[in-house]
Amino acid sequence: MKNYIQKHPWKVIEQGFHKDENKITESLCSIGNGKMGMRGNFEESYSGESLQGSYYAGIYYPDKTKVGWWKNGYPEYFAKVLNGCNWSGLKIMIGDCELDLNKAEIKSFTRELDMMNGLLSRNCIITLPNGAEVEITSQRFCSMHQDEIAALEYSFTVNNFKGKIFIDSYLDFDIENEDSNYDEKFWNESKVLNEEEIIYNQAVTKKTGFELGLAAKSVCKKDSAEIQASNIVIATKYISTQYELEIQSGTNFQINKFIGVSSSFYHQHGELKANAIKLAKEASSTGYDLLKSNHEHCWQDKWNISDIEIDGDVGAQQGIRFNIFHLNQTYTGQDARLNIGPKGFTGEKYGGSTYWDTEAYCLPFYLSTANQKVAKNLLIYRHNHLNKAIENASKLGFKDGAALYPMVTINGEECHNEWEITFEEIHRNGAIAYAIFDYIRYTGDDKYLAEHGLDVLIAIARFWAQRVNYSEAKKKYVILGVTGPNEYENNVNNNWYTNYIAVWCLKYCIDALKHVKADDANRFKEILSNNQFDEKETENWNEIIKHIHLPKSEELGIYLQQDNFLDKDQSPVSELRGEDLPLNQKWSWDRILRSVYIKQADVLQGLYFFEEDFSHAEIKRNFEYYEPRTVHESSLSPCVHVILACLIGMEDKAYEMYLRTSRLDLDDYNNDTEDGLHITSMAGTWMSIVKGFGGMRIKENKLYFNPSLPKNWEKLSFRINFRDSLVNIKITSTEISLKNESNNNLQISIVDQSINLNPNEIKVYNL
Amino acid sequence: MKNYIQKHPWKVIEQGFHKDENKITESLCSIGNGKMGMRGNFEESYSGESLQGSYYAGIYYPDKTKVGWWKNGYPEYFAKVLNGCNWSGLKIMIGDCELDLNKAEIKSFTRELDMMNGLLSRNCIITLPNGAEVEITSQRFCSMHQDEIAALEYSFTVNNFKGKIFIDSYLDFDIENEDSNYDEKFWNESKVLNEEEIIYNQAVTKKTGFELGLAAKSVCKKDSAEIQASNIVIATKYISTQYELEIQSGTNFQINKFIGVSSSFYHQHGELKANAIKLAKEASSTGYDLLKSNHEHCWQDKWNISDIEIDGDVGAQQGIRFNIFHLNQTYTGQDARLNIGPKGFTGEKYGGSTYWDTEAYCLPFYLSTANQKVAKNLLIYRHNHLNKAIENASKLGFKDGAALYPMVTINGEECHNEWEITFEEIHRNGAIAYAIFDYIRYTGDDKYLAEHGLDVLIAIARFWAQRVNYSEAKKKYVILGVTGPNEYENNVNNNWYTNYIAVWCLKYCIDALKHVKADDANRFKEILSNNQFDEKETENWNEIIKHIHLPKSEELGIYLQQDNFLDKDQSPVSELRGEDLPLNQKWSWDRILRSVYIKQADVLQGLYFFEEDFSHAEIKRNFEYYEPRTVHESSLSPCVHVILACLIGMEDKAYEMYLRTSRLDLDDYNNDTEDGLHITSMAGTWMSIVKGFGGMRIKENKLYFNPSLPKNWEKLSFRINFRDSLVNIKITSTEISLKNESNNNLQISIVDQSINLNPNEIKVYNL
Repeated sequence: MKNYIQKHPWKVIEQGFHKDENKITESLCSIGNGKMGMRGNFEESYSGESLQGSYYAGIYYPDKTKVGWWKNGYPEYFAKVLNGCNWSGLKIMIGDCELDLNKAEIKSFTRELDMMNGLLSRNCIITLPNGAEVEITSQRFCSMHQDEIAALEYSFTVNNFKGKIFIDSYLDFDIENEDSNYDEKFWNESKVLNEEEIIYNQAVTKKTGFELGLAAKSVCKKDSAEIQASNIVIATKYISTQYELEIQSGTNFQINKFIGVSSSFYHQHGELKANAIKLAKEASSTGYDLLKSNHEHCWQDKWNISDIEIDGDVGAQQGIRFNIFHLNQTYTGQDARLNIGPKGFTGEKYGGSTYWDTEAYCLPFYLSTANQKVAKNLLIYRHNHLNKAIENASKLGFKDGAALYPMVTINGEECHNEWEITFEEIHRNGAIAYAIFDYIRYTGDDKYLAEHGLDVLIAIARFWAQRVNYSEAKKKYVILGVTGPNEYENNVNNNWYTNYIAVWCLKYCIDALKHVKADDANRFKEILSNNQFDEKETENWNEIIKHIHLPKSEELGIYLQQDNFLDKDQSPVSELRGEDLPLNQKWSWDRILRSVYIKQADVLQGLYFFEEDFSHAEIKRNFEYYEPRTVHESSLSPCVHVILACLIGMEDKAYEMYLRTSRLDLDDYNNDTEDGLHITSMAGTWMSIVKGFGGMRIKENKLYFNPSLPKNWEKLSFRINFRDSLVNIKITSTEISLKNESNNNLQISIVDQSINLNPNEIKVYNL
Repeated sequence: MKNYIQKHPWKVIEQGFHKDENKITESLCSIGNGKMGMRGNFEESYSGESLQGSYYAGIYYPDKTKVGWWKNGYPEYFAKVLNGCNWSGLKIMIGDCELDLNKAEIKSFTRELDMMNGLLSRNCIITLPNGAEVEITSQRFCSMHQDEIAALEYSFTVNNFKGKIFIDSYLDFDIENEDSNYDEKFWNESKVLNEEEIIYNQAVTKKTGFELGLAAKSVCKKDSAEIQASNIVIATKYISTQYELEIQSGTNFQINKFIGVSSSFYHQHGELKANAIKLAKEASSTGYDLLKSNHEHCWQDKWNISDIEIDGDVGAQQGIRFNIFHLNQTYTGQDARLNIGPKGFTGEKYGGSTYWDTEAYCLPFYLSTANQKVAKNLLIYRHNHLNKAIENASKLGFKDGAALYPMVTINGEECHNEWEITFEEIHRNGAIAYAIFDYIRYTGDDKYLAEHGLDVLIAIARFWAQRVNYSEAKKKYVILGVTGPNEYENNVNNNWYTNYIAVWCLKYCIDALKHVKADDANRFKEILSNNQFDEKETENWNEIIKHIHLPKSEELGIYLQQDNFLDKDQSPVSELRGEDLPLNQKWSWDRILRSVYIKQADVLQGLYFFEEDFSHAEIKRNFEYYEPRTVHESSLSPCVHVILACLIGMEDKAYEMYLRTSRLDLDDYNNDTEDGLHITSMAGTWMSIVKGFGGMRIKENKLYFNPSLPKNWEKLSFRINFRDSLVNIKITSTEISLKNESNNNLQISIVDQSINLNPNEIKVYNL
């Protein structure tokens, strides 16, 4: 755990350069706009520890699978997010010394991410080995207003030096992915060229053939007077605009760099160059200040809906804004071909872009804080991949249109290669069906079933119907050999969560079939025919629903994580020695597997999803059994615990859990923020507040709140976008105030009361 | 399955060159002498499919582990048997054409392995692209008489050609392991030199620093007259003696190559060169014919004890001799640092050299066919590795001197890296304890306990005592998260075999403690002190013995392979479609795991080991349940089934199983003989005959036989070396004849009779 980032409600501030934490700060200070993003690297060269990273939406590379022991069914490759052209780079020589903070004496230093406005800036004063004193001010952003444009402003004043200086403002494609399996570079030789005052660098990915071109227009001023470039420098996959001058002490330079980005993911191959150059030109004529102001307005619009205010706890305030900020940078929901990568645009670890995290943890955030189309695009993403999911299932021996969605994917094909996960963590299929339910419950858009949803539900139901087998010993349907959400148990039998969601999928699909049949008979017929579906298939489904085995302990009154859970030594986490934690670094894998310790919510994940099926007493018994055995070694674990703890009135436990999630990256809780941020778990933090402390649910097509504020919070405020209405919620320990910021009448439930809220009306209720 | 090898009682004959099967034939025709070995490659260059392989005992390379997803506890490397200097190579140019069977027209061809004499030879007549007709005769062997010497004789006559020819008789160290994880070469740059007429090539392994030096003295005759070398040719890690001549059509050449091998595994580093050169010189002055005759005498001695004769089934006869031949080539038992590699000296797949195969399958062969010291060395090998096994266990969280022997090892350190095997296939520890029991039961050498055995038994017992946990739910001790001998189930709970052998280890250790205490009180104290062992530890062991959970089905009257075995779909193998087999190539891993299908004997392995603990009716019920569910996709599976089938009177089933094992490699049953032979399963075939059809056991310190001959065999004869007595057994369908070929009186049991056999006496019993 680190503690060097200053607490501030709207900013991430590194005061004084923390060299040893540089990669962490780079991750924290990442900027992006849903179409591209980059880590908070320095513009000038830096020879110390750094992960230079610039990422572009939709561009990936299928890296040849690396595995010790091949298992039949493994994918040939792992699709990886690509580190691409570095556009922010400046190489500055002052005399014979390169401007490099790693080799300079640092007099003062501030790096600051302004989350309100989406700006990364830095101020520092340094002395170079040759005695030159340099004062640097820099700022940059990826435009939210025009998402193929980025810009930076870099100013520096040189004192105590006279002589020659060089400034190279470059575009560099000679980039390697840090996690390349076989130390290959993924970009082929680039084409570089310059046109008028614009440099252009375009490369193509190996195998996938994605083309990406960046154009940069640099404007350089010496003591406020624009100067002309001296040279264009070309090297391997590299091009720069070079300025060469003799200067006197006290000279100031200001460089603006206007970037146009153009990729074949969005444009015709032949048009990339013209488009990028046009964008860079336009940006340059718009000018830095206006570009920035347009960008800031877009951020204001986003914050207007998605902000959460916490009074009385600046650390929590900073934490939740940090999470919301990065979620908004990662996914804007305009393109159903994109999804939410585990590291977003902040790093390259774990490759892929889509895990079940999207459906289970991220969807609610986008449902409540953005246009409904955004969440819908996350659903359509999976519908677009349906055929590949059917193909994937058929590789594993399933047939007749059964689908198994991949554990990790970019383009719909499975990337992962650990049999116990790839082949066995099949509950992910359930989350994909649940997301359809969750979306419709929230939006009321039940037409989605006929549109796309039912195709997916049928294929998933078919999977489950084939995946069960009938146990003669138990006289029940069982699901053998699975890994549940708790990945600290592998290849178990009858994981309760998996079995529960499996039959839920069957039931929901049967309901959906009925609904569409009643609602739109023609479309229904079309769906049956498209999916070669015979309604008789549901007879078998009903048998399975009726006779599914759901392990439980009558004695303890709990559901069992899996059949043999109670054979384990049941000592709780509190009896572990400090040196045993974290288990995943201290214990061998077999020891973890046979232990009772739980990585992340498993039975509790099911109680969270299907809360209404269980009494509070039941939820409490299970929570009290499983929570003390949970080590929360997944960033996705605490949020579910917060929500349930709030539900059953364990406020202290809820707040304790919340602290583990909200500042996970800001405090580098898991010692891995240097690899990038935990984007998907950020959505879990949002849920902790809104569904946990806010107690928000959708019940019978209405918003519902049952708040329980942490003791040290004075006030919690947020807005919720619900079916085209914006609701402003303010919660204190004694009251909840609701403002209807829309033109519609709203029916809202608070605990056990139902209230009417007219347009622009505010109502306050005592708690 | 292939069928191109001619059936012959003593020979492996390839008649006509089978190009597509060349790598298979190379494996089959491997020669060796326990200290070195090589595949049946051609001496001259061959540009077609071939795995050039020469292997030297004890020399390995720790190849950096290759794994997709690292698990805590994985070893850093996989120790691999090294492909080393090629000593048999000849490069022959006839005019501008290289002698290369891949580019020649083949008129006639015979490759032949003479198993009686340990000789590989070849005759062929070919026409080269330039029209030259060449008749080749070659023969070679690795001397069993002097195990650091090898020799070859290569003769060829050139017709229809006049002009220049070159003969290079070389030593080549520019060798790569086919299975190198990162395409590295494992040998550093070699030193080559020539001294008088001898060439010498010495290289050192990277990391491990093993040095290996080979000296070659070549003698070349042209039409029977010795000729002098023209040149010494030196290239990368390569040296050759070159002969260059102008010839007329009809010229005959004969090359003898005498090889001396010297490795730092056996000699001081500084002495390698002198030793290898001395050996090559001596061999050359001894001459090829005398070297060969000495070698043949050694083989005769081996066959005298170890041969099995089967009358009436030449395929079975060839099969069993092939297996005995290769077992004798692989391990001669003179050095306790060596063990039996899965491929012996016939290939490099699976690296490592020691699996539990040694104890479970190989030991009985060496016990019965060689001096008792040979089997004892296999036990001492493990005793030498005890500290490393304790270290290995401590990496996995065990303490206080508990040992877990590695799954795969060369030097005592674990090499394997699949968690479900490395960490969970812990029953291997049981086999290592069982081997001590088995050795003492056979030899009567119970002093071994005090000497070395008890150290190992204590450490293994401690492991089991820590590995169990008490299940409150079952009120029993359980062993969770294991992989049994059937590797088609992973991470199961309470594998019956594992649990059974675990408590057996505890019991046997308690017995052994009592025995040594009574027999040698001083040594006993020493052992307690060396192992910091307090006899009170056994109190807990007795609790575990008393309360161990051994899953069984009362209804079916069988032991359960693991707790949840009966939840599986129980359809037998006979209901699988042909296209589903072999499962390991056709099904994804999860599907195999949740299926009922068994890779190799598991419960049945336990019934085989502990036969006397169970009634025949019980064994029969289990056999009849598990056998129909077994796919035998391990080469180690059928032998146990043969032995049990014979025991319970299912002769037809026994013979059916036997056919799957005896000609596994000769017929390339599993399509992988090209990688090398299945050495350890060969010992299983031997067991099938002697313990299966011969019904041999040791009961109360006496040999016991209960034969049941396959219907189509007229006679089965073999010798058994039992406690310094040699017994010659001949079995027909109606009688068994026993001859005591020693000077001791022998007590032998046949079925239910006990008989005396005086020295040199023959007795015949009707069956």
